[in-house]
Amino acid sequence: MTLEHNHRLAALRASLTRHGLDGFLIPRADEHLGEYVPASAERLAYITGFTGSAGLAIVLADHAAVWSDGRYTLQLEEQTDGALWERLHLIEQKPEEWLKTQAAGRRIGYDPMLISADGLARFAGAEMVPVESNPLDEIWADRPAPPMGPAVPHPDSYAGEPSAAKRARLAAVLREAKEDAAILSDPASLAWLFNIRGTDVEFTPIALGYALLFADGTASLFMAGEKLPAETRTFLGAGVELAERGALPAALRALAGKTVRYDPATQPVWFKTTLTEAGAIVSAGADPVSLPRATKNRVEQDGARAAHVRDGAAMVRFLAWAAEALASGEETEMSAAARLLAERAKEADFRGESFPAISGAGEHGAIIHYRVTPESNRPIRPNELYLIDSGGQYLDGTTDITRTLWTGPGPAPEEVKTHVTRVLAGHIAVAMLVFPEGVAGPHLDAFARQALWQLGLDYDHGTGHGVGAYLSVHEGPAGISRAAKPVPLRPGMILSDEPGLYLPGAYGIRLENLLLVQEADFPDARKTFLRFETLTLAPFDRALIDPAQLEPAARTWLNAYHERVRATLSPHLAAQPAVQDWLNRATAPI
Amino acid sequence: MTLEHNHRLAALRASLTRHGLDGFLIPRADEHLGEYVPASAERLAYITGFTGSAGLAIVLADHAAVWSDGRYTLQLEEQTDGALWERLHLIEQKPEEWLKTQAAGRRIGYDPMLISADGLARFAGAEMVPVESNPLDEIWADRPAPPMGPAVPHPDSYAGEPSAAKRARLAAVLREAKEDAAILSDPASLAWLFNIRGTDVEFTPIALGYALLFADGTASLFMAGEKLPAETRTFLGAGVELAERGALPAALRALAGKTVRYDPATQPVWFKTTLTEAGAIVSAGADPVSLPRATKNRVEQDGARAAHVRDGAAMVRFLAWAAEALASGEETEMSAAARLLAERAKEADFRGESFPAISGAGEHGAIIHYRVTPESNRPIRPNELYLIDSGGQYLDGTTDITRTLWTGPGPAPEEVKTHVTRVLAGHIAVAMLVFPEGVAGPHLDAFARQALWQLGLDYDHGTGHGVGAYLSVHEGPAGISRAAKPVPLRPGMILSDEPGLYLPGAYGIRLENLLLVQEADFPDARKTFLRFETLTLAPFDRALIDPAQLEPAARTWLNAYHERVRATLSPHLAAQPAVQDWLNRATAPI
Repeated sequence: MTLEHNHRLAALRASLTRHGLDGFLIPRADEHLGEYVPASAERLAYITGFTGSAGLAIVLADHAAVWSDGRYTLQLEEQTDGALWERLHLIEQKPEEWLKTQAAGRRIGYDPMLISADGLARFAGAEMVPVESNPLDEIWADRPAPPMGPAVPHPDSYAGEPSAAKRARLAAVLREAKEDAAILSDPASLAWLFNIRGTDVEFTPIALGYALLFADGTASLFMAGEKLPAETRTFLGAGVELAERGALPAALRALAGKTVRYDPATQPVWFKTTLTEAGAIVSAGADPVSLPRATKNRVEQDGARAAHVRDGAAMVRFLAWAAEALASGEETEMSAAARLLAERAKEADFRGESFPAISGAGEHGAIIHYRVTPESNRPIRPNELYLIDSGGQYLDGTTDITRTLWTGPGPAPEEVKTHVTRVLAGHIAVAMLVFPEGVAGPHLDAFARQALWQLGLDYDHGTGHGVGAYLSVHEGPAGISRAAKPVPLRPGMILSDEPGLYLPGAYGIRLENLLLVQEADFPDARKTFLRFETLTLAPFDRALIDPAQLEPAARTWLNAYHERVRATLSPHLAAQPAVQDWLNRATAPI
Repeated sequence: MTLEHNHRLAALRASLTRHGLDGFLIPRADEHLGEYVPASAERLAYITGFTGSAGLAIVLADHAAVWSDGRYTLQLEEQTDGALWERLHLIEQKPEEWLKTQAAGRRIGYDPMLISADGLARFAGAEMVPVESNPLDEIWADRPAPPMGPAVPHPDSYAGEPSAAKRARLAAVLREAKEDAAILSDPASLAWLFNIRGTDVEFTPIALGYALLFADGTASLFMAGEKLPAETRTFLGAGVELAERGALPAALRALAGKTVRYDPATQPVWFKTTLTEAGAIVSAGADPVSLPRATKNRVEQDGARAAHVRDGAAMVRFLAWAAEALASGEETEMSAAARLLAERAKEADFRGESFPAISGAGEHGAIIHYRVTPESNRPIRPNELYLIDSGGQYLDGTTDITRTLWTGPGPAPEEVKTHVTRVLAGHIAVAMLVFPEGVAGPHLDAFARQALWQLGLDYDHGTGHGVGAYLSVHEGPAGISRAAKPVPLRPGMILSDEPGLYLPGAYGIRLENLLLVQEADFPDARKTFLRFETLTLAPFDRALIDPAQLEPAARTWLNAYHERVRATLSPHLAAQPAVQDWLNRATAPI
């Protein structure tokens, strides 16, 4: 491993010399700047060995460094060779500051497809040189081929709005902004706009490609022809011109003199420079799909509800099984996660997990983004906490749920119950919120934390992220976090509500449901108020709840929620009396 | 009145012609861009007749318009002549947009001492021309002389830190930022930095002037010599060079080649242009006094506590009187406010009100910034709500308190009690908060509103503002409001907590205490947590509280608070057994 990475690093340095570069930037990003990247774009893992989902490397002639965040500190140490790589923390020693001190007067190359304009601007202190051909790709002999799964129609019965209507809606926005076209580089934006779904990356049903949306409602879709079966071509219709990826530069050059929207936060900087060189006017603005995609229409909302009923039935079967099985000491983190996946796979229209399940027993629960591997897998033991954060992709919706369980058979210690109850109080405080239009996630995040803060406790992640409609489980632009942009919440948005608490080396707690933003019904109100509808349907483990530490309103909410879970899911469990018995006990009033 | 303003407007237009201008901007601001302005700077009132605290006028050759916000819509109509002035709303029809449509190709003058760089930038769509001499001042024959009250020392026993130490602290900040000097144009910044107080404007104990703070800890203070008695000159010491206002341009020119901090949000744009023309490098940054001034030291915190005990004793005498007097129907808004002022004036070190008291009965309570006048004054009637928002300036601290009372003798209607109890629940929710360092006001504002939001109710103002230490009752940079900049709260900050509810034409509710940010005591916590200490000491009217609508934790807070009010104030009421009796009843547990 080390020897291999040694050779690769030497080869890259030789390649840099041929390019006349003194250094090179290697982000953990693909050409769409997405969260999940295909194997063909795992450049950071190829060159460093580090496989985490957030990171960056910088290679200089005599020195190289690799960064990740606090989630991956241990993994970074384990997977990379300290003799080759300085291992650094993205926040504590920022790459741009490191580069400023290390690389004065040096020409640092970057691949303009792998970084956004905003991302590149952070490195303004160094001499950054775009490359036409990626020097790392040139030395990557056994690079996997890019994925070529088919892009299939996502019918109106799920999408709720034909692509032509969506394009007409967004085209009006472009005309209003006096823009002639907009760049689309996020495959999830393509999936929403054209009502297509794909299989190019794990966990998110997208087909990689680019598009131009024009102010007349037509579009050009740049996607490998072999990914587009005849059925899809017919479905896309006359308003969508199809072209290969290779046709993109010429298409941008044809926009000379036009005003084109480009999103500096999420789109490769290559688009900006190519448009500018072509003589187009670059208009900085958000991906026009982002906000419409986040506000689900009635059909998508109904789909989400239906998917959550089936997902809830699978969860309840899993939880009923876990209530017995986990106390046995015979299950492991991997076997439990597999059991849950098996339950989900029994449900109609299940397409796979929406992210790698986090299945963490005891101290592993305290690792926020823990991913069980054959090496880390351990038995789930009696009388400990077990955290399972998982989700499914269904044709009608995407789910994401976390439950924290007491394995038993003994009772949970009082301190553990206090911690879980405080996390639950925060979850409920958010779920119960009513708020007027204009309020955004950063204004609500503290409700999830106040019960913990009262004890001097906190958790180091946001409270909630947007969730797509059979799309990304992490979807912008809104989030419930102090660090999030203050995007006002709107009816139809789906957000997670997932406070937690992590005691390193001991245990972790997280309780997560998905919430759907709805208009609240106040006929006399002078403005529009919003509230959350809880989509997720599964009991919280009553063995971990101390009712005395919940305010009466929170207890009322919990009992009503459990009542609703039982009433909604029972018709789906008719053939399983043992599961129904467990559900009845698990949802009895506290 | 109308004839007079007609003449003034004609004279101003003639003056503009002499200046070669097609129009002129008249903000409601003095040369320090402060909230309270001296009579000599009431230009907007002089030319339009409008005396509200927020506004702007633009005079063109053939057209003139005056703006204010929703608080002053009626007053603007009453005080200005519709034949002379178009009356507009600052938000609904923005002056910069109005000007863009009205003044294409016209030269619009502005006084660069009366607008900040950020304020001027809003008018970038028009041709804005700075004037050397204000054309309005030239026609203002009977303009009052600028105030010349003495600036007196504010001794270390109140200030807690000598000026030299403060200057050394701030000079280190300038050196760290590689700045040679900083502009100070806010008289409250001068008051804090030099430990002086004055009498130049109403309600805020400031002495108008400017200063330059240098990176070596010395300073130049530009203030009329007749405002500086010998005692003050001695107190200021050798590190502070004294100069007349007229010496300021030369002093800025002497900064050629130096880097000078200028605050584009709060300082007159004249400083920026003068520095630039002089060849200085303008470094945009916040007034360096702003944050240190907001974080009160131990002595200032103790002073604030002591001032609030005396203010609380005065409030309790007033409230005990009001409990009987307001049901009689013989008191008026003015007489009640005068009674409260008289009670405050009995207290040691009282220096005057910290703002014009808002004394509003019934429907007047719904006018958020109501200021009773002889014309608006009305009797306070039995069985209605009465809102009194007032504060005092004491040598050791500034107070600001709002109580809403039921005049009796009958019981309050249930709907009124519901509304008051919901406002109180919001007040208490904020007062009880615990939060880690890094949390800012915008993250907490919703706690004050959630109980109202649950009923589809809200209030259209921020929840809290900073308060000075025997200084401005409205002090930056932190505030509890979604619209506020997210300045993290720090120990020593004093903020108001004042949710409300306003039913136009019916009644208004507001409940306000001042809160002091303190470090919370969690020895095992992994980060620093903060909490609020309530400074204000006065009962909330129990006739308006429905205990069933408060969660148990809020009831516990209220009873503990009332207990503390009684225990703290009783020693100050020994000579007044009737007041003590009332206080005992008013603070009994609910």
